[in-house]
Amino acid sequence: MKKHNFSAGPAILPQSVLAQAAEAVKDFEGAGLSILEMSHRSPEFSAVMAEAISLVRELFELPDNYKVLFLTGGASSQFYMVPMNLLSDGEHSSYINTGTWSTKAIKEVSNFGTVEEIASSKDQNFSYYPKEYTIPENTKYLHLTSNNTIFGTQIKEFPETKVPMICDMSSDVFSRRIDASKFGVIYAGAQKNLGPAGTTLVIVREDLLGKTERNIPTMLDYRTHIAKDSMFNTPPAYPIYVCMLTLRWIKEQGGLQAMEAKNEAKANLLYNEIDSNPKFEGVAAKEDRSLMNVTFVLKDKSQEAAFLEKCEAANISGIKGHRSVGGFRASIYNAMPMSSVQVLVDLMKAF
Amino acid sequence: MKKHNFSAGPAILPQSVLAQAAEAVKDFEGAGLSILEMSHRSPEFSAVMAEAISLVRELFELPDNYKVLFLTGGASSQFYMVPMNLLSDGEHSSYINTGTWSTKAIKEVSNFGTVEEIASSKDQNFSYYPKEYTIPENTKYLHLTSNNTIFGTQIKEFPETKVPMICDMSSDVFSRRIDASKFGVIYAGAQKNLGPAGTTLVIVREDLLGKTERNIPTMLDYRTHIAKDSMFNTPPAYPIYVCMLTLRWIKEQGGLQAMEAKNEAKANLLYNEIDSNPKFEGVAAKEDRSLMNVTFVLKDKSQEAAFLEKCEAANISGIKGHRSVGGFRASIYNAMPMSSVQVLVDLMKAF
Repeated sequence: MKKHNFSAGPAILPQSVLAQAAEAVKDFEGAGLSILEMSHRSPEFSAVMAEAISLVRELFELPDNYKVLFLTGGASSQFYMVPMNLLSDGEHSSYINTGTWSTKAIKEVSNFGTVEEIASSKDQNFSYYPKEYTIPENTKYLHLTSNNTIFGTQIKEFPETKVPMICDMSSDVFSRRIDASKFGVIYAGAQKNLGPAGTTLVIVREDLLGKTERNIPTMLDYRTHIAKDSMFNTPPAYPIYVCMLTLRWIKEQGGLQAMEAKNEAKANLLYNEIDSNPKFEGVAAKEDRSLMNVTFVLKDKSQEAAFLEKCEAANISGIKGHRSVGGFRASIYNAMPMSSVQVLVDLMKAF
Repeated sequence: MKKHNFSAGPAILPQSVLAQAAEAVKDFEGAGLSILEMSHRSPEFSAVMAEAISLVRELFELPDNYKVLFLTGGASSQFYMVPMNLLSDGEHSSYINTGTWSTKAIKEVSNFGTVEEIASSKDQNFSYYPKEYTIPENTKYLHLTSNNTIFGTQIKEFPETKVPMICDMSSDVFSRRIDASKFGVIYAGAQKNLGPAGTTLVIVREDLLGKTERNIPTMLDYRTHIAKDSMFNTPPAYPIYVCMLTLRWIKEQGGLQAMEAKNEAKANLLYNEIDSNPKFEGVAAKEDRSLMNVTFVLKDKSQEAAFLEKCEAANISGIKGHRSVGGFRASIYNAMPMSSVQVLVDLMKAF
């Protein structure tokens, strides 16, 4: 029996995508080969890559000067690749620290330039999204994490900035409409809204590149991958294929507007229960609540184990909170059906 | 109908592995979840990673001071990660240049230390493996590429060296017995003998690390991944899972001794036909012929298209030679059955 998968990532994917993804491992569209054993230079895989890139462009309505890459190494690798490619020695960058991942991103900058944490919500265990800050005049870019998987906060309105915004969208990419033209770089590990683990989406405004004199290893230079449409070396073909299927599914569902509406409805259902049920309470500041990762606790901590047991009995998985926050975390990404959220809400009501 | 897959990579995988790999996309061992949507911290995936590492250790009989990593970025990323982790500024490294991939590896060193090409077969379009060279006293390591996918050459006997040997084994890893204790680092992109594209096996002798004062980005420091058993960040879970299945298959087949015997038999069958058939001739020097990638040409080039057509009609795919060599290349990795090699040989006989 299929579980209700509330895992924070790798995370739930659409059932129709999983069915096609399994079929392609046996035989890719009647080619007589598994997609796992097909050359990345084959016409078949070239078409997969082209469609994946094209769907990203279409869903985000990307202007021509933005390039779409499918790389590897996770968002964690973008933490150093961004400053390595964009900052020259001594140049300044600004970061907003909203949790574990922002903190890790900040740590990687100093090899390449200077870094200033211009705002942080660390004072309250990252339970809110900072809104008051000044972006220094001399800074090269502003980096932020749009959604904080661990703490359950999400930025609702991106700031207006004179400098390019760099955004780690790993856990809310393609979950809502954004104005992509506001960003210098958008990056996202695939394993939440986009596909399985193993590839990282990177969208780069091309004119930002080539400004540093630094010698960048070939594989770490965004321009290497732009020049070859992410096929400079063998790409992670299967993860990219499953991303392509998921992007197709998003488009078929009605694109980002439809995703946004569905995600709001699911989150409202769950947050309403948290707010109205006297046993539970939310962790994140209400105005900054994530539509993707809903963090909550039982007021009486001693009942936690009992609630987790009920969840397990109801076939709910991945609901235990991260150790930095405790309690529970329901990750309700694009592919999570309303019916699974309802199962959880019913369980909370009954508890 | 299943093709005879002679692709150079991504390449043929065992049929039983593909069947299990497809099943796990639907449901992983009855967990009620696809492996694509399971947390990498789940007990299920942790067991996959542990078994993959353990099988590598067992098949290569690795001493305890060798660590096994499943990283990303392909062998191409090891071209810079090796000198970044092992060389200090001004330190010397020695490379043997046996083709396209060695050349690329050599190109990445100069950001980190000095590099000397102590031998090369470029003078004869990389059609042989250099055997005469002197390893400088002051060098930190010797780097070589054990098998040259494009040119069809393979080292038969690794040299005795005082310095650690670093070896790119992307296209012949696990195809024969080696004495792993001779090496400082072994690396291999998965997509030939090991699994699908998307992960890179790296085996490191741990005492070689931590000797440089260089600031290494967290994700590029081998020690980061050693400390967390390749789970510092989300690993490419599915590619690693398929590698694990393939490693299990190698063990079930009788391990590296059995692989070696089978690979020799397949290569002999094909090379014998090339040598005895007056229409064809081999590309690589006989004593350096690869057991994995068999490069050959038609003496009369004008018949190439006709032969390729016959191959296609016989359900043979991936046999066209690389543009740097021309003619044909039959990649006959571990998973290639003798029966498929026989189909090709019969076709050559009939041609």
